[in-house]
Amino acid sequence: MHQWPGAMGRLKFRSHMQLENCKIVMVGTTHPGNVGAAARAMQTMRLSCLALVDPQCPIGEIAYARASGANAVLDQRETFETLSQAIADCHCVIATSARRRSLSWPEVEAGELGEMIAGFADDHRVALVFGREHSGLSNEELQLCNYMVRIPTNPDFSSLNVAAAVQLLGYEIFRHHAPKTAPKSPDTSDLPANSAELEGMLMHLQQVMQNSGFLDPTQPNQIMQRMRRLFLRSEMTRNEINILRGLLSAVEKTP
Amino acid sequence: MHQWPGAMGRLKFRSHMQLENCKIVMVGTTHPGNVGAAARAMQTMRLSCLALVDPQCPIGEIAYARASGANAVLDQRETFETLSQAIADCHCVIATSARRRSLSWPEVEAGELGEMIAGFADDHRVALVFGREHSGLSNEELQLCNYMVRIPTNPDFSSLNVAAAVQLLGYEIFRHHAPKTAPKSPDTSDLPANSAELEGMLMHLQQVMQNSGFLDPTQPNQIMQRMRRLFLRSEMTRNEINILRGLLSAVEKTP
Repeated sequence: MHQWPGAMGRLKFRSHMQLENCKIVMVGTTHPGNVGAAARAMQTMRLSCLALVDPQCPIGEIAYARASGANAVLDQRETFETLSQAIADCHCVIATSARRRSLSWPEVEAGELGEMIAGFADDHRVALVFGREHSGLSNEELQLCNYMVRIPTNPDFSSLNVAAAVQLLGYEIFRHHAPKTAPKSPDTSDLPANSAELEGMLMHLQQVMQNSGFLDPTQPNQIMQRMRRLFLRSEMTRNEINILRGLLSAVEKTP
Repeated sequence: MHQWPGAMGRLKFRSHMQLENCKIVMVGTTHPGNVGAAARAMQTMRLSCLALVDPQCPIGEIAYARASGANAVLDQRETFETLSQAIADCHCVIATSARRRSLSWPEVEAGELGEMIAGFADDHRVALVFGREHSGLSNEELQLCNYMVRIPTNPDFSSLNVAAAVQLLGYEIFRHHAPKTAPKSPDTSDLPANSAELEGMLMHLQQVMQNSGFLDPTQPNQIMQRMRRLFLRSEMTRNEINILRGLLSAVEKTP
């Protein structure tokens, strides 16, 4: 497991994890039955916050039938056009994906997920992102995520149903829901940045890189990807973002 | 957790658990989609042995569609009239049931299941028994079982789908079976930076911060300490240091 550093580490193991701060995000889902089954899985594990990104199917009778009584989760769902909109208010974004990537990403084991986010989710929103049934998440979507969670599966048949994946990760979170140690007081002066704040900083950085001539504006990708990976894994605080943006503004103004 | 007695205790922790010795038994299932989804869940967790007891539905197109390629599990299924026939060759029988009973039964937690049956299943057959969608297992059926496994769920909505339950318990068994993944071989093109490289970058950063007027040179400490903390916990690579220093050099030269 990649080490859990920074802000998360500092805030870990506070009293009761607020499961309402765990958002399940389903991207580009094509089958309403899967949305319903995911809602049911969520409710069995006391998760209530469902976000759909660009759903490819109507959420109607089929979804409600498969939800099997977990109507509240479906009723309260939110729908977004893009993943970045869905996670804008989240301070930690965790992707699930069965696909092997050339791009390596900080990985956590499913079995470690609950302990990892216990405490952090007291005061901060955590998103678990589930990709399309057939094609998962795009690389662009994956790059919005801090971590990738690995569910151990049969290497010859790793095709987990998306609702089954929601069930498994919900279970891992729910069973670590109970407090383990005494609460620590949070450092309120230095809260974790959310995804929108981080994206704003990265855009600012890219701009300064281009204006200074360091970055070829026609070929920004490789270097910006490395910067993104660096700052995502750093789990930056709001304060740190402010400092870096202050510096970026200062160097922009330098005559 | 209830103690694991007898033969199991003696045989625990032997080499590789033989997953083909774990039999999934579904009793009185009424929906073919659930049988298909259970087959899929089984195959993702390398379980292959499915037994149906008195199924209340045909296993045809719907089941195969939901199995999503896990056809072998469905093709090789066995069908029995009674639970006692289905488990006749099993040495340990574990029931799953959401219903609370007046009858108390030796209980195990789902999270302990994998470790419990590891080793034992090398040489012995273990059955996991899943009850009917609406009414679970009868007391007579439960009394054929050695243990009852408890899956932690939301007390206000404990209605786990039967295939979701197969998925969860299959996962608990599989992850105690599979060897932990070997650590990834490091990306040698991107080695961790050493302390001198990090310090060099921080000095360079401070210089640019001062020259741009962002940092008061008489009071650099607080902001530089925050930057140091950020980049230390990021465990930066050499490559990332080089990119940042390249940017710092570029903004220094900007006219």
